[in-house]
Amino acid sequence: MKFPQPVSTQWIADLIHAQVIGDAQASITGINEIHKVETGDLCFVDHPKYYDTCLKSDASFIIINKAVDNAYGKTLLVCDQPFEAYLTIVSHFRPFVPATEMISNTAVIGKGTTIMPGVFIGHHVRIGRNCIIHPNVTIYDYTEIGDNVVVHAGTTLGADAFYYNSKRDRVVWYKKMKSCGRVVLEDDVEIGANCCIDKGVTHDTRIGRGTKLDNLVQVGHDVVIGQNCIIAAQVGIAGATTIGNGVNLWGQVGVSKTLHIGDGANVLAQSGVPSSIEGGKTYWGTPVVEAQVKRKELVWVKRIPEIWEKVKNK
Amino acid sequence: MKFPQPVSTQWIADLIHAQVIGDAQASITGINEIHKVETGDLCFVDHPKYYDTCLKSDASFIIINKAVDNAYGKTLLVCDQPFEAYLTIVSHFRPFVPATEMISNTAVIGKGTTIMPGVFIGHHVRIGRNCIIHPNVTIYDYTEIGDNVVVHAGTTLGADAFYYNSKRDRVVWYKKMKSCGRVVLEDDVEIGANCCIDKGVTHDTRIGRGTKLDNLVQVGHDVVIGQNCIIAAQVGIAGATTIGNGVNLWGQVGVSKTLHIGDGANVLAQSGVPSSIEGGKTYWGTPVVEAQVKRKELVWVKRIPEIWEKVKNK
Amino acid sequence: MKFPQPVSTQWIADLIHAQVIGDAQASITGINEIHKVETGDLCFVDHPKYYDTCLKSDASFIIINKAVDNAYGKTLLVCDQPFEAYLTIVSHFRPFVPATEMISNTAVIGKGTTIMPGVFIGHHVRIGRNCIIHPNVTIYDYTEIGDNVVVHAGTTLGADAFYYNSKRDRVVWYKKMKSCGRVVLEDDVEIGANCCIDKGVTHDTRIGRGTKLDNLVQVGHDVVIGQNCIIAAQVGIAGATTIGNGVNLWGQVGVSKTLHIGDGANVLAQSGVPSSIEGGKTYWGTPVVEAQVKRKELVWVKRIPEIWEKVKNK
Repeated sequence: MKFPQPVSTQWIADLIHAQVIGDAQASITGINEIHKVETGDLCFVDHPKYYDTCLKSDASFIIINKAVDNAYGKTLLVCDQPFEAYLTIVSHFRPFVPATEMISNTAVIGKGTTIMPGVFIGHHVRIGRNCIIHPNVTIYDYTEIGDNVVVHAGTTLGADAFYYNSKRDRVVWYKKMKSCGRVVLEDDVEIGANCCIDKGVTHDTRIGRGTKLDNLVQVGHDVVIGQNCIIAAQVGIAGATTIGNGVNLWGQVGVSKTLHIGDGANVLAQSGVPSSIEGGKTYWGTPVVEAQVKRKELVWVKRIPEIWEKVKNK
Repeated sequence: MKFPQPVSTQWIADLIHAQVIGDAQASITGINEIHKVETGDLCFVDHPKYYDTCLKSDASFIIINKAVDNAYGKTLLVCDQPFEAYLTIVSHFRPFVPATEMISNTAVIGKGTTIMPGVFIGHHVRIGRNCIIHPNVTIYDYTEIGDNVVVHAGTTLGADAFYYNSKRDRVVWYKKMKSCGRVVLEDDVEIGANCCIDKGVTHDTRIGRGTKLDNLVQVGHDVVIGQNCIIAAQVGIAGATTIGNGVNLWGQVGVSKTLHIGDGANVLAQSGVPSSIEGGKTYWGTPVVEAQVKRKELVWVKRIPEIWEKVKNK
Repeated sequence: MKFPQPVSTQWIADLIHAQVIGDAQASITGINEIHKVETGDLCFVDHPKYYDTCLKSDASFIIINKAVDNAYGKTLLVCDQPFEAYLTIVSHFRPFVPATEMISNTAVIGKGTTIMPGVFIGHHVRIGRNCIIHPNVTIYDYTEIGDNVVVHAGTTLGADAFYYNSKRDRVVWYKKMKSCGRVVLEDDVEIGANCCIDKGVTHDTRIGRGTKLDNLVQVGHDVVIGQNCIIAAQVGIAGATTIGNGVNLWGQVGVSKTLHIGDGANVLAQSGVPSSIEGGKTYWGTPVVEAQVKRKELVWVKRIPEIWEKVKNK
């Protein structure tokens, strides 16, 4: 998330009660996760295991719980609870503002777009031209929708990332990582009924131009789907996975998190994708292999009794 | 889809800028897909591969992109873009009419039926007697519901078929095949919460009398489910599949498109049905086989190490 | 279900046209299924196969279709149709009362709780403090929600159990077992978007403190989930299953009915759990086995061709 305008390091330090090591007058442009962060941005780290990754990242400013030796020239904001500091900053810039109307008066809706009854449109949502948003759809704050987009009934765009800070020494183990990212649907996208597309944690969940989703599809936080993909009913895609252009995922396929599916990959129904796969091939099975490999394997399994007959008297 | 009343061939030809070869004064009763079309109806074909199937179908009138030799006595409407002609006809007879109220004043609702708050009911919907439609259900235009039907909250009836004309030489590969069919729920059907039942492309998606669906079930376009079936939670049934009477599909089963499941078939949880299966048997696995075959196969797989011990020194 | 106050046996007998064998003046505290019933409660039985289980249960009162010899000292209410008698009692104490407003005026909503637009809240619902109920959520009658609970958009809490009395000698085979239980969400629970949590048949479906559900999750009637569990997207849990504390079910896992999953079990994505599993282990596969067993099995299957090479000339 970028801040509406850059803010000084000292201002942030005061907000989160941190001590600045570095230039307290420098301007911070936004806050992002370690793998999304850009020059000028802030990120946070609270576990020594990740100190190094964070210090070598593109972040210019780091919220950290130790005044580490800083060979990479970052400005440090040192405080006891970096995760809580992150929550404080996000809550400041993206406070949850309860809605009182079905359509927020801060939403911008393009010419020729039809909003059917029962649709909820949150604050700062932008919808392009010639779209149809069918009944009982929910669009959370800051969602961005292009032109010629169709969203079928009952779909939820922009619910929170399923992403928690976990500590087993407290009564409630999971403390929510507040999401401040968005959902972005590019032009000519169609989303089926009763789908769920979560917002990014700090960045965007994005569906590329011309991609079509069938019903009851789950798209996790920070997923990026390319152009002209076909995502069949009941597919689930876990957080931060990226999918190329022209990919087909058939019914009930499950895709794990933070992996990549190459352009033109074709994944057959009910398959499970546990790690990255190359484009241009057809896959099947849980875990997926190339479809012809899986077909042969099924034939081999049926031949085990025949093998047994040959060896049983050995 | 049948037209509200028969129209002359010349009138349709003028609408789609086609040249008539045959009787321009003949009456056309409706427009349907090649496998649903009846005598008196129109269908369309734009690929030489399907010319013959279309010419031999029950259609009386054919929109086609070539003035073929017509041994089967059909009346041809020749134009460059049969798919676009189809869209023009459907848009004319079934225009999308945005709704402004949660319940259309063209909907007909039977005596003793309860419509809970937040339900959207589109144009020309008909609901029978003694039904309960729970909150936040969406019922698209032209849906037809019998007597004693219960639909639980959040369900979507009649969203568009997931059905696209695909051409990879344009920026947006998939152009939507406009659906003009309906969803029909017969008497005594119960539909769980957050289900999706898509309308037929040109004909009906139908759920037979006394059939019960659990939650989060996906039923694709033109699916026909018989009477007294049990469809458990998170089952997905792809387009144009037909299912007999007394069939049980247990949780998370996936069924592929355009196949048939016979009366009394029992498909165990998480199975995948890739092609037609006979009735009266219990099935399991992906792809499904008879359940006892699958059980034996699982035992054989566990015996591979034992076989290995016998042969490893060969 | 407990009655609002105890009622006399004779009063119930008159309601269902039953003959009392035992103390007609005794007080009945509620009605429950055979495996949930407590001392003072009523249960029903209509099949000789279950007579004995019912007579030995904790029920004090039994609706039964035969004046059996009663060695266990229960009070019997004898009538021809015990199932219909059950429905009569439930309909009397928990009649379906159609709602006319999105939020019932019998609902109690705690301080600091935000109800977003489009939310339906049924009769006698109780929601604690500092909750957020996102748009287009449906909360059926009698649901109980603790403090600091978040429910995302489109979710349905408290739809009817998928539970039918089945007889194949009538036109409509399945007659609905009316549910009179509740959904209970304890403190600090978060439920994702478009989830379905069914009410208990006569008792509670319960989600324990601090447990987090992702989107499109199905939780059947009478399921009890412990504390601090992670239930990922598109998981389905069938009726009356119990899940311990600190359990993780990853994406698209399916869990069968009436089984138990022990504390700290970790079930990998797309697995199927057909029967009870111990806590503290990681599971994978359909049907699940310990994950390392499944991994070895996958390796063995790939070695079948190698085994074949060794034996093919025998």
